[in-house]
Amino acid sequence: MASTFGELFRIATWGESHGPAVGVVVDGCPPRVPITAEEIQVELDRRRPGQSRITSRRDEADAVAILSGVHDGLTLGSPIALLVRNADARSGDYQEIRQAFRPSQADYTYQAKYGIRAAAGGGRASARETIGRVASGAIARKLLAVQAQIEIVAYVKQVHDLGATIDAGAVTRQDVDANIVRCPDAAVADQMIALIDQARADGDSLGGVVEAVARHVPAGLGEPVFDKLHADLGKALLSIPACKGFEVGSGFAGTRLHGSEHNDVFYSEDGRIRTRTNRSGGIQGGISNGEDIIVCAAFKPVATILREQETVDVEGKPTLLKPRGRHDPCVLPRAVPIVEAMMALVLADHFLRQRALGG
Amino acid sequence: MASTFGELFRIATWGESHGPAVGVVVDGCPPRVPITAEEIQVELDRRRPGQSRITSRRDEADAVAILSGVHDGLTLGSPIALLVRNADARSGDYQEIRQAFRPSQADYTYQAKYGIRAAAGGGRASARETIGRVASGAIARKLLAVQAQIEIVAYVKQVHDLGATIDAGAVTRQDVDANIVRCPDAAVADQMIALIDQARADGDSLGGVVEAVARHVPAGLGEPVFDKLHADLGKALLSIPACKGFEVGSGFAGTRLHGSEHNDVFYSEDGRIRTRTNRSGGIQGGISNGEDIIVCAAFKPVATILREQETVDVEGKPTLLKPRGRHDPCVLPRAVPIVEAMMALVLADHFLRQRALGG
Amino acid sequence: MASTFGELFRIATWGESHGPAVGVVVDGCPPRVPITAEEIQVELDRRRPGQSRITSRRDEADAVAILSGVHDGLTLGSPIALLVRNADARSGDYQEIRQAFRPSQADYTYQAKYGIRAAAGGGRASARETIGRVASGAIARKLLAVQAQIEIVAYVKQVHDLGATIDAGAVTRQDVDANIVRCPDAAVADQMIALIDQARADGDSLGGVVEAVARHVPAGLGEPVFDKLHADLGKALLSIPACKGFEVGSGFAGTRLHGSEHNDVFYSEDGRIRTRTNRSGGIQGGISNGEDIIVCAAFKPVATILREQETVDVEGKPTLLKPRGRHDPCVLPRAVPIVEAMMALVLADHFLRQRALGG
Amino acid sequence: MASTFGELFRIATWGESHGPAVGVVVDGCPPRVPITAEEIQVELDRRRPGQSRITSRRDEADAVAILSGVHDGLTLGSPIALLVRNADARSGDYQEIRQAFRPSQADYTYQAKYGIRAAAGGGRASARETIGRVASGAIARKLLAVQAQIEIVAYVKQVHDLGATIDAGAVTRQDVDANIVRCPDAAVADQMIALIDQARADGDSLGGVVEAVARHVPAGLGEPVFDKLHADLGKALLSIPACKGFEVGSGFAGTRLHGSEHNDVFYSEDGRIRTRTNRSGGIQGGISNGEDIIVCAAFKPVATILREQETVDVEGKPTLLKPRGRHDPCVLPRAVPIVEAMMALVLADHFLRQRALGG
Repeated sequence: MASTFGELFRIATWGESHGPAVGVVVDGCPPRVPITAEEIQVELDRRRPGQSRITSRRDEADAVAILSGVHDGLTLGSPIALLVRNADARSGDYQEIRQAFRPSQADYTYQAKYGIRAAAGGGRASARETIGRVASGAIARKLLAVQAQIEIVAYVKQVHDLGATIDAGAVTRQDVDANIVRCPDAAVADQMIALIDQARADGDSLGGVVEAVARHVPAGLGEPVFDKLHADLGKALLSIPACKGFEVGSGFAGTRLHGSEHNDVFYSEDGRIRTRTNRSGGIQGGISNGEDIIVCAAFKPVATILREQETVDVEGKPTLLKPRGRHDPCVLPRAVPIVEAMMALVLADHFLRQRALGG
Repeated sequence: MASTFGELFRIATWGESHGPAVGVVVDGCPPRVPITAEEIQVELDRRRPGQSRITSRRDEADAVAILSGVHDGLTLGSPIALLVRNADARSGDYQEIRQAFRPSQADYTYQAKYGIRAAAGGGRASARETIGRVASGAIARKLLAVQAQIEIVAYVKQVHDLGATIDAGAVTRQDVDANIVRCPDAAVADQMIALIDQARADGDSLGGVVEAVARHVPAGLGEPVFDKLHADLGKALLSIPACKGFEVGSGFAGTRLHGSEHNDVFYSEDGRIRTRTNRSGGIQGGISNGEDIIVCAAFKPVATILREQETVDVEGKPTLLKPRGRHDPCVLPRAVPIVEAMMALVLADHFLRQRALGG
Repeated sequence: MASTFGELFRIATWGESHGPAVGVVVDGCPPRVPITAEEIQVELDRRRPGQSRITSRRDEADAVAILSGVHDGLTLGSPIALLVRNADARSGDYQEIRQAFRPSQADYTYQAKYGIRAAAGGGRASARETIGRVASGAIARKLLAVQAQIEIVAYVKQVHDLGATIDAGAVTRQDVDANIVRCPDAAVADQMIALIDQARADGDSLGGVVEAVARHVPAGLGEPVFDKLHADLGKALLSIPACKGFEVGSGFAGTRLHGSEHNDVFYSEDGRIRTRTNRSGGIQGGISNGEDIIVCAAFKPVATILREQETVDVEGKPTLLKPRGRHDPCVLPRAVPIVEAMMALVLADHFLRQRALGG
Repeated sequence: MASTFGELFRIATWGESHGPAVGVVVDGCPPRVPITAEEIQVELDRRRPGQSRITSRRDEADAVAILSGVHDGLTLGSPIALLVRNADARSGDYQEIRQAFRPSQADYTYQAKYGIRAAAGGGRASARETIGRVASGAIARKLLAVQAQIEIVAYVKQVHDLGATIDAGAVTRQDVDANIVRCPDAAVADQMIALIDQARADGDSLGGVVEAVARHVPAGLGEPVFDKLHADLGKALLSIPACKGFEVGSGFAGTRLHGSEHNDVFYSEDGRIRTRTNRSGGIQGGISNGEDIIVCAAFKPVATILREQETVDVEGKPTLLKPRGRHDPCVLPRAVPIVEAMMALVLADHFLRQRALGG
């Protein structure tokens, strides 16, 4: 369905950018998982605009309210409704886009699909749609932590042509949040920030890559054919606004190796079967093998730029878009908590699915 | 579900490599679509092993039978059951893998997940699982052709470090099938074939990239949040055995552009809104925009190699895997029809979903 | 899923009786359906407690807010979030039921299922859960009216041993709402009201039957095997609190006829194929035939009574439940809009499913 | 979907009456459940036509083949494909119904829905569609038996106006199969058989009621809102051909009781919480309470009768249907294994769903 995700741990998100609120309903969360609004807020604060000088200056507190499904700090097993009010909506900024299709945005395709659209702020296509992902992902994350000791860390691996060196096996959230670009390679992070500052000054935008690792995932999660664990992770990450590519393990680079180089050799360690390398990215045949799950998501430079752009209006006539409003020159730092949330949602779903099988 | 794919145009595949048969049930195909076993067989013949000297020498006719849902050459609206008997099963080749986990295969993860596995031929993890995809994809393809004039072409874009130059807008199936490696760049194709011949001689394997294009897709297909068209395509392609990466449009390369370079400018042509470039890959905000949909899938070098490999047995003790049996040094040529099939299944599903909305 | 209903026109409801609010998200509603909060409120007002002397005296305005998915009075195609604040929650009334399991309520089974429960007001098992059904059903009803001219009318057919005589083909909502028991047989309605008054005075409760008719349903809605139209209607109605039985057409009474008496003979009228009788209840082989769809739902006498009752506490020790709080001696009048809503949701879903097939 | 049933224990059935075969794919069955073709055949033999003088004389062995998902007598966790060849298809009997719509059959509605139909034998609307239900139900039954000690018994409770007296708590399959009408009240069974013999002689048909009981169902199965256990059972039974009504526990009769009479009083027995009566039918608030689950299904007299009937042809012109072919004067005895199968499928699904929650 349009706005529903997951089989057993399932979420339904809703909300337009300039409506009264955005939110999410989590259906299928097991009972007795400890969760508080504060824990959810921590994740939302990492996503919210205005959190640092390199993100959008739309300033929203994005305070979450739990409306159902949690009682005395524990989930009840019933649907958990989370709501975040929209505050800083400047509809005036968006009058022009009622008439003109912004390049590489969803204006034209929404119009083509629905024959109607809530133009202000991009409506449903706004990045505010991701609030529901992050809020529900916080619950999935907690479930995974308390029932399976799984931990998830994402970070910025590349901005434009600046790539970082990061030890996926060891990196912590503290490392990631040590700088505003969320790249745990401090030297490269400084360069990235300078590059983003420059892009902002130029009214331009930058893309990059977020990498994420899930640790302590038990062997056996994922389904063998269509719902392969990396296929579901791929869909989850590709569904994030601006994501154009996905890799697991060796990804595209692995296509240039021979099988004899690429295969991960098994060995035994303390009674547990492990692999000496991890080109599989922790997933073999679509099923987790107990090694770290490592995935990458490519984010394009966002389409909103503060430059004059040619386009057409709703009647197809050529027009010019004037630069106006606020913009986020590089979404990568804010994409980090969204990637973590989507990864948590997929793993929580497969964790429940495997438990259903008796595993 | 494990082996079910699609929301409205839905398939359920089944079958182990060394069982009596493999097959698929298509539930949700509209009535009165003309389809014959011969049309399905054409696609299966492009997938089958033994079709050329560079593929696996397991020789299977893979003849399809339509058991239900089609009457006098037209679909009935009821489920379409397709069945392919397994013929050339040499269980003897597989005795060893009951005891040892083959590196980078699904042996260990299946055992971890299910506590049981049909070792012969990889059981459900065998490439024979893809027969159901290709057979059902043939029906999806026909539906798209007759009801929406959509056409799909996939081809080998890269083998190991050999990349081809192909015009996605113009390439035809005839071009693709002009050589056994299914790369429509004839000069590079020859080099690819030589490289694959060498890998076979070395008992090794090669990876690469398949690109696919869907043309004449109407604007408006795809859902705006989780079931974005490229997210569903990503999942579909990532679920193919050995696929480790996915891109739409500019993909990973696009992360190195500025927004001002990356945005696709709209213009009007004969009353139709188009884009001057297609870095979006035909999809904006998760919804088709009427331009060619272009996606890429990265395939690792397959894990089966004819070389001695270290591993552990089912009790975790070190052992050596002897090279034996048959192998497919490069699955890319056979992956082409599978990629086309998965793309057709996703587009057929979204075509029906959009029709449900009244669009 | 626990709280999700429908395939294409899909709702997710949420909310506990004594939490801050209850609500629903509608995912999959087509765009450009005209709908206002006022139209939804009309239906909620028919469901709300305190609307007449024969319903519960819990007095709630149940004012609905549309939080997303509707713009300038038209649906956008994006999820529609509806929210109703809880107002009149007297938690004090419910202290006792934290400790004792009320007979024939969901206290014990929730505890057995989840190991936790929000005791106040029955938590998720409260009748307030049906607010989301009625609110979303109002949108489904509007979709059916404007895109398919379908109309739905439900009414009380029986209270306790008092049965009414009603012409399903002609009855209107005006007829139904002409009295507080929502039985369009005026003479019997008076007797029903007297019976309910007596039950209230006795601190007891009464059951009965609601019948519903859908008119102008085109032939062809419904699926032939599992998702037969009457099977989905049956599930929908049986999922309403206190519903214990369902019939379509001749139902249980039809089991006492011979086939020669029961068969509905076809004839042709103005170029349209019709049946002379309608023992099929408008559905043959699971698919609508164009005649009125007629279904019945049996509601047990509700479990909350103002009498002392034996039971056990959460440790299994015998205890006595004292009569306290408010009670609704007969839910039938308030069940009428809920039955209509569920019927509308099922028909809207199948209407979209049939449109997806091209029908 | 049209022919898919279940969330976690999911089946997809296929096959027309006069095609080469019918079958089912079970997706989601846990691994390591012991099952053999012989165990499945036992159930199919109870369903097959020609098993006694009071059923249809179409004589089919209905021999099942397991094509996948089972290895050495244990399920693998992969999809289980079951196939039954069609043998005794006399297409000649059905020439007439290509032209005329049989009263109260699915001929007209299929034509209206699909614009095409496989007329022979009713195509997909044939009772042969239930083979897939019974075959997959046998696996669900085995899963429930070995992993949850649940047992299911159904029996004929009423034929036409003859009602039987049966102790649902004690009745065994042996009791049920002691006579050809599958009514464990021997005296009434004889009268039922005489009535059915008479109906056959008259070329007429009879309806009736099947009751089913599930014993040892643990408390906690079922979902609290839409997927209430009795709502899913209702849908499952109502989806069986000819079923027009459903009840759980006190059903329609319960509507004539007062709440003070209807409530099931809790007590404690050997540390287990039980109810003194079982008007709830083992389900409270949609969730099993550990008591016997008791449901009823009403079957209309089947539409095929050997009498001349008025109808219209495909162009709407009046015509007469001549009596011909074979008929089954009372499907109740053969409905018994189908009801058991559907009940097993629903319980298996909810058993897995509850396990996913950690329960």
